[in-house]
Amino acid sequence: MIVALEAMGGDNAPDTVVEGAISAARQLGVEVLLVGDEKAIGIALSKHDTVGLPISIVHAPQVVGMDESPASVIRRKRDSSIWIATDLVKQSKASAVISAGHTGASMATALFILGALPGVDRPAIATVLPTLTGRAVLLDVGANVDCKPQHLVQFAIMGYIYAKDVLGVPEPKVGLLSIGEEDSKGNELTKEAFKQLKETPMLSDSFMGNVEGRDVYMGEVDVIVCDGFTGNVALKISEGLSETIVQFLKRDILSSVTGRLGSLLLAPAFSRLRKKIDYAEYGGAPLLGVNGISIICHGRSSGRAIHNAIAVAKTSYERGVNRHIETQIGQAW
Amino acid sequence: MIVALEAMGGDNAPDTVVEGAISAARQLGVEVLLVGDEKAIGIALSKHDTVGLPISIVHAPQVVGMDESPASVIRRKRDSSIWIATDLVKQSKASAVISAGHTGASMATALFILGALPGVDRPAIATVLPTLTGRAVLLDVGANVDCKPQHLVQFAIMGYIYAKDVLGVPEPKVGLLSIGEEDSKGNELTKEAFKQLKETPMLSDSFMGNVEGRDVYMGEVDVIVCDGFTGNVALKISEGLSETIVQFLKRDILSSVTGRLGSLLLAPAFSRLRKKIDYAEYGGAPLLGVNGISIICHGRSSGRAIHNAIAVAKTSYERGVNRHIETQIGQAW
Repeated sequence: MIVALEAMGGDNAPDTVVEGAISAARQLGVEVLLVGDEKAIGIALSKHDTVGLPISIVHAPQVVGMDESPASVIRRKRDSSIWIATDLVKQSKASAVISAGHTGASMATALFILGALPGVDRPAIATVLPTLTGRAVLLDVGANVDCKPQHLVQFAIMGYIYAKDVLGVPEPKVGLLSIGEEDSKGNELTKEAFKQLKETPMLSDSFMGNVEGRDVYMGEVDVIVCDGFTGNVALKISEGLSETIVQFLKRDILSSVTGRLGSLLLAPAFSRLRKKIDYAEYGGAPLLGVNGISIICHGRSSGRAIHNAIAVAKTSYERGVNRHIETQIGQAW
Repeated sequence: MIVALEAMGGDNAPDTVVEGAISAARQLGVEVLLVGDEKAIGIALSKHDTVGLPISIVHAPQVVGMDESPASVIRRKRDSSIWIATDLVKQSKASAVISAGHTGASMATALFILGALPGVDRPAIATVLPTLTGRAVLLDVGANVDCKPQHLVQFAIMGYIYAKDVLGVPEPKVGLLSIGEEDSKGNELTKEAFKQLKETPMLSDSFMGNVEGRDVYMGEVDVIVCDGFTGNVALKISEGLSETIVQFLKRDILSSVTGRLGSLLLAPAFSRLRKKIDYAEYGGAPLLGVNGISIICHGRSSGRAIHNAIAVAKTSYERGVNRHIETQIGQAW
């Protein structure tokens, strides 16, 4: 399998991206095309021993800045690293595109160049969250801010397939994010989506009804479906709150001597917690429903996170996630 | 000032409610009418020395069960403690109603019996959250699941007044919860609300534009406005995630000996953290915009939380929150 890895995006690009590429090429047997400025990538590669590894560079003269609009990338930056990386998938020179750069540009180029799978109305960004019992997929977290009920049904089908194929959950349970567990609770969108989810044959055993915000991290369901506005708020609130809690504890602990001692002893636990709640660790967020594999990584992805994203791309490819989505959406509509 | 305190709702009612009432009557000089089963309240009161305190009982023969619908309370339970407590405000026998019982029933009876203040289209539930720099008001967190842009403008005005009058922020900053900081980001509702907020004279200095989910806990704004669906999800996600993080840390810490030692030393910090992120501590959630003061407390409110809710009711009353809301909404429309 060949992965087009946009090498210029993210906090320490191209160094961290190159680290992830090397680790994945070595351990996962994936061929990696590093897309971006060939000189910068060459320098990053030269710091490592890459003899015999299936890694090559595809030059892209431009990079998308974090302040550019996705629309302007599509109009004017067709020689940028994200455009060229995505186009490699369109040309069947790679099976997946991965980037830790501009999220909006990654999404827009994937939608524009690759398009949606047949039957899919709206591709959705899925993210994997840690729960008390394991992991859960939340979608959409930002691709579609205004949704119709049937979009949420499609998200449910795509999330179900992702949880099964990639997370390896044998029989994923699906919940609709709402504000009460009763069928009758929710806003206009979720009340209608609830009815449609109930009537979708493929989900007859897996749809568990409404779940509330506090259930998201409890692990009672494996897939949580919502519109992209609500999902994005939920995800960003979680990031902010996690950081705030760690800050509160740190400040409080540093203000006392016994606390400082406790802090030393607990440092490993805090470090593991950070890792657990940092969604970069989970291998990025796939844009489900596009005709190709597109994975969007967090800007602060480590080499390990990039490696994990490549592993997710590989699993998605080998298990045939897109074929399954196409088949199931085809049957449901 | 006289407060009607529904005494039968909450996890350890009426004991915790009575504790809060006694503490508030003693320290805040507030007169408390305990509304509920007079025998049960009498027993709870008899455990304390209440000589000379301005506390009395108003008997209510029924209690609303947690599984009853708010509509059925309005139709059939007009002799319930929440109904009678709310009606005391309507009859001017009390200035505020406070309950830790059925949230939906508290809200429904307040809306039904007290009605909205002149000019207010939709009362909203406001909650106070801890931030890195202090506190922030988030509203609506559940009274209105489907909102129009002008409702969000009214929420902004009410939240501004609450932050100023009750939290004591001299010049509150107001943010619109959205999914990007740029003006153009958001869903249909927030994009239109953004424009209307920009054009509201009263908010010309205070409206800071869009804030993202991760800004909520950072404390850059004092008031965060959203529809009740998004706000409820945000609040419940926060509760679930806080508990999950504490669980993660506990499990991890208990698995090692140095961790267990660290844990002992850090116990006070964890306890303070719990208190900080437990919104019960902040004195309940006011239903802003009703014609009277109505405060909804968490079901697991402690006596201290009930005391705090009474303190918030007192401040709201003394500062004239409702008069200010009426005046400002009247000027804006």
